Amino acid sequence: MNKAWEDFVPGKWSNEINVRDFIQRNYTPYDGDESFLAGPTEATTKLWNEVADLMKQEHEKGGVLDCDIDNPSQVNSHKPGYIDQPLEKIVGLQTDKPLKRAFMPNGGIRMACQAAEQYGYTIDETIKNFFMKYRKTHNDGVFDVYTPEMRACRTAHILTGLPDTYGRGRIVGDYRRIALYGVDYLIKQKEFDKSLLCGEMTDDKIRDREEIAEQVKALKQLKDMAQSYGCDISKPAETAQQAIQALYFGYLAAVKDQNGAAMSIGRNSTFLDIYIERDLKKGLITESDAQEFMDHFIMKLRMVRFARIQSYNELFSGDPTWVTESIGGMGTDGRSLVTKNSFRVLHTLENLGPAPEPNLTVLWSKRLPLAFKKYCAKISITTSAIQYESDELMRPLMGDDYCIACCVSSMRQGKDMQFFGARANLAKCLLYAINGGKDELLLDKVTGKHVQVGPEYKAIESNEPLNFEDVKHKYEIMMDWLADIYVNTLNAIHYMHDKYSYEALEMGLHDSQVHRFFATGIAGLSCAADSLSAIKYAKVTPVRDAEGIVVDFNVEGDFPKYGNNDDRVDELATWLVETFMNDIRKHHTYRNSEATMSILTITSNVVYGKKTGNTPDGRKAGQPLAPGANPMHGRDSHGALASLESVAKLPYEDSRDGISNTFAVTPNALGK
Amino acid sequence: MNKAWEDFVPGKWSNEINVRDFIQRNYTPYDGDESFLAGPTEATTKLWNEVADLMKQEHEKGGVLDCDIDNPSQVNSHKPGYIDQPLEKIVGLQTDKPLKRAFMPNGGIRMACQAAEQYGYTIDETIKNFFMKYRKTHNDGVFDVYTPEMRACRTAHILTGLPDTYGRGRIVGDYRRIALYGVDYLIKQKEFDKSLLCGEMTDDKIRDREEIAEQVKALKQLKDMAQSYGCDISKPAETAQQAIQALYFGYLAAVKDQNGAAMSIGRNSTFLDIYIERDLKKGLITESDAQEFMDHFIMKLRMVRFARIQSYNELFSGDPTWVTESIGGMGTDGRSLVTKNSFRVLHTLENLGPAPEPNLTVLWSKRLPLAFKKYCAKISITTSAIQYESDELMRPLMGDDYCIACCVSSMRQGKDMQFFGARANLAKCLLYAINGGKDELLLDKVTGKHVQVGPEYKAIESNEPLNFEDVKHKYEIMMDWLADIYVNTLNAIHYMHDKYSYEALEMGLHDSQVHRFFATGIAGLSCAADSLSAIKYAKVTPVRDAEGIVVDFNVEGDFPKYGNNDDRVDELATWLVETFMNDIRKHHTYRNSEATMSILTITSNVVYGKKTGNTPDGRKAGQPLAPGANPMHGRDSHGALASLESVAKLPYEDSRDGISNTFAVTPNALGK
Repeated sequence: MNKAWEDFVPGKWSNEINVRDFIQRNYTPYDGDESFLAGPTEATTKLWNEVADLMKQEHEKGGVLDCDIDNPSQVNSHKPGYIDQPLEKIVGLQTDKPLKRAFMPNGGIRMACQAAEQYGYTIDETIKNFFMKYRKTHNDGVFDVYTPEMRACRTAHILTGLPDTYGRGRIVGDYRRIALYGVDYLIKQKEFDKSLLCGEMTDDKIRDREEIAEQVKALKQLKDMAQSYGCDISKPAETAQQAIQALYFGYLAAVKDQNGAAMSIGRNSTFLDIYIERDLKKGLITESDAQEFMDHFIMKLRMVRFARIQSYNELFSGDPTWVTESIGGMGTDGRSLVTKNSFRVLHTLENLGPAPEPNLTVLWSKRLPLAFKKYCAKISITTSAIQYESDELMRPLMGDDYCIACCVSSMRQGKDMQFFGARANLAKCLLYAINGGKDELLLDKVTGKHVQVGPEYKAIESNEPLNFEDVKHKYEIMMDWLADIYVNTLNAIHYMHDKYSYEALEMGLHDSQVHRFFATGIAGLSCAADSLSAIKYAKVTPVRDAEGIVVDFNVEGDFPKYGNNDDRVDELATWLVETFMNDIRKHHTYRNSEATMSILTITSNVVYGKKTGNTPDGRKAGQPLAPGANPMHGRDSHGALASLESVAKLPYEDSRDGISNTFAVTPNALGK
Repeated sequence: MNKAWEDFVPGKWSNEINVRDFIQRNYTPYDGDESFLAGPTEATTKLWNEVADLMKQEHEKGGVLDCDIDNPSQVNSHKPGYIDQPLEKIVGLQTDKPLKRAFMPNGGIRMACQAAEQYGYTIDETIKNFFMKYRKTHNDGVFDVYTPEMRACRTAHILTGLPDTYGRGRIVGDYRRIALYGVDYLIKQKEFDKSLLCGEMTDDKIRDREEIAEQVKALKQLKDMAQSYGCDISKPAETAQQAIQALYFGYLAAVKDQNGAAMSIGRNSTFLDIYIERDLKKGLITESDAQEFMDHFIMKLRMVRFARIQSYNELFSGDPTWVTESIGGMGTDGRSLVTKNSFRVLHTLENLGPAPEPNLTVLWSKRLPLAFKKYCAKISITTSAIQYESDELMRPLMGDDYCIACCVSSMRQGKDMQFFGARANLAKCLLYAINGGKDELLLDKVTGKHVQVGPEYKAIESNEPLNFEDVKHKYEIMMDWLADIYVNTLNAIHYMHDKYSYEALEMGLHDSQVHRFFATGIAGLSCAADSLSAIKYAKVTPVRDAEGIVVDFNVEGDFPKYGNNDDRVDELATWLVETFMNDIRKHHTYRNSEATMSILTITSNVVYGKKTGNTPDGRKAGQPLAPGANPMHGRDSHGALASLESVAKLPYEDSRDGISNTFAVTPNALGK
């Protein structure tokens, strides 16, 4: 590794897989401004125009340019593909052609076929048959074990967006390891880890051994795939270009292997800066070269595509890939982790124009260098394409080498993984508490009566205005049930995902002794909090239909609303988060993973709202819930700061998987 | 079920799946002689001649008549096949043509392809590729998790015949349930059982739920398969012919689904007698009809074939299927379970001529009706084709509705299953004790030195005659190690077999709350016992090779030999059985199954002997070990009774999976 590691400061990282240590010893913090940045090269502009043209064709064709129909995707299943080979500084496509979507049946053969058919492609009959008859997929496994109650919760959408018809995603391989160590060393380390799993062969140990064996196979396939592009990644990268290329091959292999709901890429720009700095110092490249590598890399990330079904697209308002790249943040030693390459990666939004993917996410701290903060603000204003996360909140728990998966899930890169679990609808759960487990919207097709989805607990029987303590008590019991069925549904899902759609490549880029999070989530928080507030502080009278089910509410008088920094209702929101998270904690979680919860529904709040009846806060059936931890639309009437203060009160220790707040700012809102 | 159950005495069996209760309430014990039996019908003779002709062609073609190359076998994967349709009273073949072997890759794709290739067939490339790339098989799973130590034990053959390259078999579905209840009722019951597996979703519960879902799918496929032959088995059988046909379809589905090492059929003849008696009484059939049904049924069982690899055939001296049918025995109420149909099934050996399959096994008791015992003796003398098992030994532990899987493994039909585990070579283990874990035969290909297979325990270093206590102590430690690695190897095997080659159809014909045996086995018992005896009672001096490894022994003086009813050595055999079984019991077994042990190696003792060096009893390297619990060949010099007495001393409670004794009797040996 002499050549590859030349000029690097050695350390623990030299003798073990330890990317953080490598970064800490070798990165060059940068507190200057963006003036050093280079514009797009001619090749970049030409290449991007070609891609833009393909994207235009894709759009004109109804969203999908091309679909593979007879080659189920694996790490090395496809021949090399190029946009315009001579121009490409960073190569590699998911299939043999740009924007051609791969056939990925492991999550569920029916969905994979359906996704293709939706766009006019028919999966080869032999292949389809084979998966139907001989190669069970995740979706089949899950539905084999679902209980009728789980299915009912799913149909009623009190549990919703569950990863049972699609890949769970949210697992971020440490793709940097490929650049720093080369695949051969990673394989060697995995073989060593496997050798430690000896002695009494329990199911857990057998599973662990098999998983490492699968990881090693996937890593070997990764090498082969890179080789097909003429790149040897068995050894560490020697140049910046090689490092970016190797890292990208790792990510590319992941998206060839898995069609996950969120396929984030990690925290790479500062790591790559080390290679770029070395090459710049040696005079091997110019700033323009460096920017070109990053532009081409980002271009590739913008081209990641999956074939997805209509209902998925509806749930997520499109077919996002959440190629989240985490940028900046502070080190635990007090130095900023901002480098020149943090600027370069944001600068791609200028060189290539704005784009939602990759999801460029700045790990924000007040202590970040002023020039960088200003640059972020500038890019936010011009492109609206940066996501911000509180590094101050996460760093104490996660250290300084975590990254964000999807929108807000923080994980120590290569050390943590998560079992993604979508969410439970707390607003609907409140209605179940009131109606004794009967769904307020879902009617039995035969009898026309409301379907009993939850347990037959005692409903509110009085027609008097709702009594807060009574409702709260019933709600507590119903949340306890919901957490039970929710966790157990997820246990089934993750068991089957591991069995039929294991993320071998991504997990091969994690420590073998990985820490697992069991991510749950809630939707409808502000709606539920406001509903409780209305019941407590106003007069809410239930309105029943002919069957006697409460389907609406008369609200008389005003009540405090979440989003105005009013403790009376903000405490109710906090109580909801704490209570439900504790209910979750009561249960056995798959592989003894650590239960966490998120409050994030950046887009799917619209679909969830459609499936939720009238609520005591005056929200009408079908109207959207608020996204994530946002106040209900229009109810935060005390200004931006009060709105943010309400959100900030939510206990992070009970929503460790993250809290999202979608915040649109007009210049006037910020005052003078 | 009115028509189907007409004239049957109702009872518990009428309201739950309980075949034993049905038999007990409805069977007609028979203590008459064989004079009622009918010879073969014209159709039987014609049909059997056709089969015999096909078998001749098969033999002439080198053992395999035809192979399917492009339709991986499943319960309903093949179109109906016939020998000569108008003549067949009982229909159904494994593939679309008689004696055409199915392609069964789930146990291991490489082996399945190799088996076909061996006989000049090439598996379709697309299919092969699919299994190689997308549908992992049992064998791949096992080798992914084996430790280097496990592989070494396998290479050295101290663990041998492990079901890691073939289906484990030894699982006997209760095929009678199909006739008695019809498939629809069985499915209904399975759905009910599944509904009981609710609450906290642990891995175990998820696995159980998925398995039942797979069982239900397999039962549905079974119905479809029967339907393709024009038979409706969704409802209970109404006639004897229907009952035999339904039962056979169940077994046929099992051998379409699984290529197990032993695919036994259970204890069916007395059950079927009830249906035959009813039809005879009603005048629906004659004795000749009844015999014809049984002859055609047995004919079908004789035609069961699997495509197997050379090494399998070598290990088992052919490619036996062990279609064991258990006959007779006594009821726990004191009545004999012998019926007219017990005679009929043995009579097939006369009507069709002798054959090794199905493996007709009489559950022997002194109290069996004299006429039946005489008939058994007669058939044994004329055909040498009956196996005997001690009903007296098994009944107290297993009740009166157990059957034999393979040769000697008793299981309560539909209530017990077993994880078959081949065997550990105790003779070789003794040599490991002497040589500190180094294999006496296996040399490293590079260094030419003896391979360290076992742990590096202290070897016998002296060149003096072996000290019994010293050897015994070292042997105890080495057996402890062997039991450890053996059980853990089996844990890995059975985990993978369940994962990649689950016996859904067979398990669908078991109670859902099934009792699981973890079957281990030993080989070389008499050789090991005689070796210990030689060391104790004679003078055994080790002979070392240049490397210092003991590779031979000088034996001076005589010593007691197992097989002569001499307690001095028989106690050593008993000590070996008890000690090793207790070593086995120390370990975690897959799915908390009950560990058992067998002493049976009916044919494979020859191969095991080839891999075992010179032993202290004077046996030379490569010479066969004795089969099962037999004395070493030629050493039982005190007559048949003394030989049998030695075997009879072995503790059944420590060899619950059975003890086999291969015994050839010439008339003179029995005295006058």
